[in-house]
Amino acid sequence: MVRYDIKCLRCGEKLPVKTWVWRHDRDNGTLSITYRGLEKHELSELLLKEYMDIRRYINILPVSLKYLNIAPIGFTPIINKKFRGVSVFFKLDYLLPSGSFKDRGALVSIAKAKELRIKRIIEDSSGNAGVAFSLYSLLYNIEANIFIPADAPSGKKALLKSLNARLHEVQGSREEVNRAAIDFEHRSRGAYVGHWWNPFFIEGVKTLAYEIHEQLGLDKVDSIIVPTSSGSLLLGVFKGIMELKSMGEISNIPKLIAVQASGYARLCYELGYGMGAEKSKLADGLRIIEPPRIGEMVLAIRETKGTCYHVTDEEVTEGLKKLWSMGFLVEPTSAVVYAALKKAISEKVVEKGENIVIILTGSGAKMLDKVLSIIRT
Amino acid sequence: MVRYDIKCLRCGEKLPVKTWVWRHDRDNGTLSITYRGLEKHELSELLLKEYMDIRRYINILPVSLKYLNIAPIGFTPIINKKFRGVSVFFKLDYLLPSGSFKDRGALVSIAKAKELRIKRIIEDSSGNAGVAFSLYSLLYNIEANIFIPADAPSGKKALLKSLNARLHEVQGSREEVNRAAIDFEHRSRGAYVGHWWNPFFIEGVKTLAYEIHEQLGLDKVDSIIVPTSSGSLLLGVFKGIMELKSMGEISNIPKLIAVQASGYARLCYELGYGMGAEKSKLADGLRIIEPPRIGEMVLAIRETKGTCYHVTDEEVTEGLKKLWSMGFLVEPTSAVVYAALKKAISEKVVEKGENIVIILTGSGAKMLDKVLSIIRT
Repeated sequence: MVRYDIKCLRCGEKLPVKTWVWRHDRDNGTLSITYRGLEKHELSELLLKEYMDIRRYINILPVSLKYLNIAPIGFTPIINKKFRGVSVFFKLDYLLPSGSFKDRGALVSIAKAKELRIKRIIEDSSGNAGVAFSLYSLLYNIEANIFIPADAPSGKKALLKSLNARLHEVQGSREEVNRAAIDFEHRSRGAYVGHWWNPFFIEGVKTLAYEIHEQLGLDKVDSIIVPTSSGSLLLGVFKGIMELKSMGEISNIPKLIAVQASGYARLCYELGYGMGAEKSKLADGLRIIEPPRIGEMVLAIRETKGTCYHVTDEEVTEGLKKLWSMGFLVEPTSAVVYAALKKAISEKVVEKGENIVIILTGSGAKMLDKVLSIIRT
Repeated sequence: MVRYDIKCLRCGEKLPVKTWVWRHDRDNGTLSITYRGLEKHELSELLLKEYMDIRRYINILPVSLKYLNIAPIGFTPIINKKFRGVSVFFKLDYLLPSGSFKDRGALVSIAKAKELRIKRIIEDSSGNAGVAFSLYSLLYNIEANIFIPADAPSGKKALLKSLNARLHEVQGSREEVNRAAIDFEHRSRGAYVGHWWNPFFIEGVKTLAYEIHEQLGLDKVDSIIVPTSSGSLLLGVFKGIMELKSMGEISNIPKLIAVQASGYARLCYELGYGMGAEKSKLADGLRIIEPPRIGEMVLAIRETKGTCYHVTDEEVTEGLKKLWSMGFLVEPTSAVVYAALKKAISEKVVEKGENIVIILTGSGAKMLDKVLSIIRT
């Protein structure tokens, strides 16, 4: 493993690597993991080529092989389709074990927690992140405490319970749920792994960029469309790309095109594209207003010369129908990418003959009734 | 690609390779595909190592690369757990795009159909095979005609329709549904791809054995537990193993341990273990009485010194709870493997210190309500 540091992005201070840290308490800064002297390495010498899963990348992950051996996932397929003269590569990350890309971040976070002998984790999410953290807690024999709004759908609660999660139902707003989870960390001596903050989560997600590079070659990818709310996907993909760049493995940097739910498009707003008038009901995985890493997200778009789109429920419905008709059995939240593709082509952000990657983030299987009712409208 | 022949297993006659064939009409024999001079090759020279998906094996598949490029799936993860002194490797084939191992067979069948310029396929299944064939038909832009019993659950019909399948509802027994599908082939000039018969399906499934070999090394695998009904999984895994053996790539042959649903255990019966008294209601994917390839299935068990178990609904329920509690979100049909593992250990078919592979065949996500209601009993 390449040695790494954990730094506060606000003040630059280094934090300890042998205890669990998820933010810099003193100044509320977000944390980032950096590998020492990465620019002196070549990717091919760092890869563990005997593995066709996330263990290939163990040398550039902040956890030891022993702890990834417990649940070595990864390498989701890519399927290529032509669309209006553009070559679109769909990355099927909804095929990971819990049904979303969040498995990558949850796995690396939980593996790290296990390595640090942590017995209890705390997360606030009733959605894909909650399911992913519950699943890897099961696989690693760690107690998962999941904080959710009291009015979360009963189906989601049943699924989390079936994965043996301890549910903590909180009356109040999403922010109050978040505060209750963080309070519980102090009281319970558990580790708060919330994916809005936790830097290990981003390390897991970055493997998506490494896989895309190994499967396609990032130098020939012009843009990547990324559904975005708290930023863990956007920042993970960005970090992977920048690491590959620093190793000299790629010279091109693909544009990152973020897509957000209308009414909750905080990143778009920050970039000057507005929030979107309509408040989305369908893209429920993307409804976060105050992502702690918003500054980093803005940087990822600017550095890659990318852009940001917000998408209405009508566009989500059209996208969901279109993606299912192409054979991609995704959930509504993932379907925002289709409208983004159309907008990017019509605004010439994406041009004919270009190669574009679309990350399909979440499976429709676990909410089949809802998906089928939307498709049949 | 290594050149191949299609032979009738009853009379040995070679059939044409440039038209769609699925049985030998003259004598009703099942067909098998064999590669010429495979014993003169080494696996490493046949692999396309730049691909981490089914295209790695293109040289030992009966279809050209161009047609696998359309939907290159494969390489599902393996997760290792200890159980009563045995090292169990779970192969997560339920993570394939349609949610079951049947994707492997459906993909190769549909890719071949596309190569042969077939525009319409016919299959009889309302279960995982129907979903898989509908999905790959979508991906390959082929018309899928799916014959199902008129009393199939409405949820399954809705899913198949959402995948754009043409549903043909047939009053009567499963055998009558099968006959109606085969009749339709003659009337419609489509290709009957039924997985009980179609030899391309087995070619797709055999990639499971190749993957297990590349991920673990088959020489250190003592047994493989295989849920079995029509035999496509058992025969696919067996064929992969025998090909690897003929290439000199492995010297050991793992025991194949088939598991069937109680009351429908035709293979167990044939081997002298009885059918099972109770008629299973839960393991609905395994309820086939007259598999056309029963003779080949018996041979696969005998040649590998394997065995066969039948499993009751009570055991399926226990297995489902146990597998979910380990983090494997499978469907009830897949859960038969747990009882088989326990039986194999108690009968010393599997001994302490051995390595055993368990194939997890189908996802519980698409029937989440049903699964959760069983788990909570």
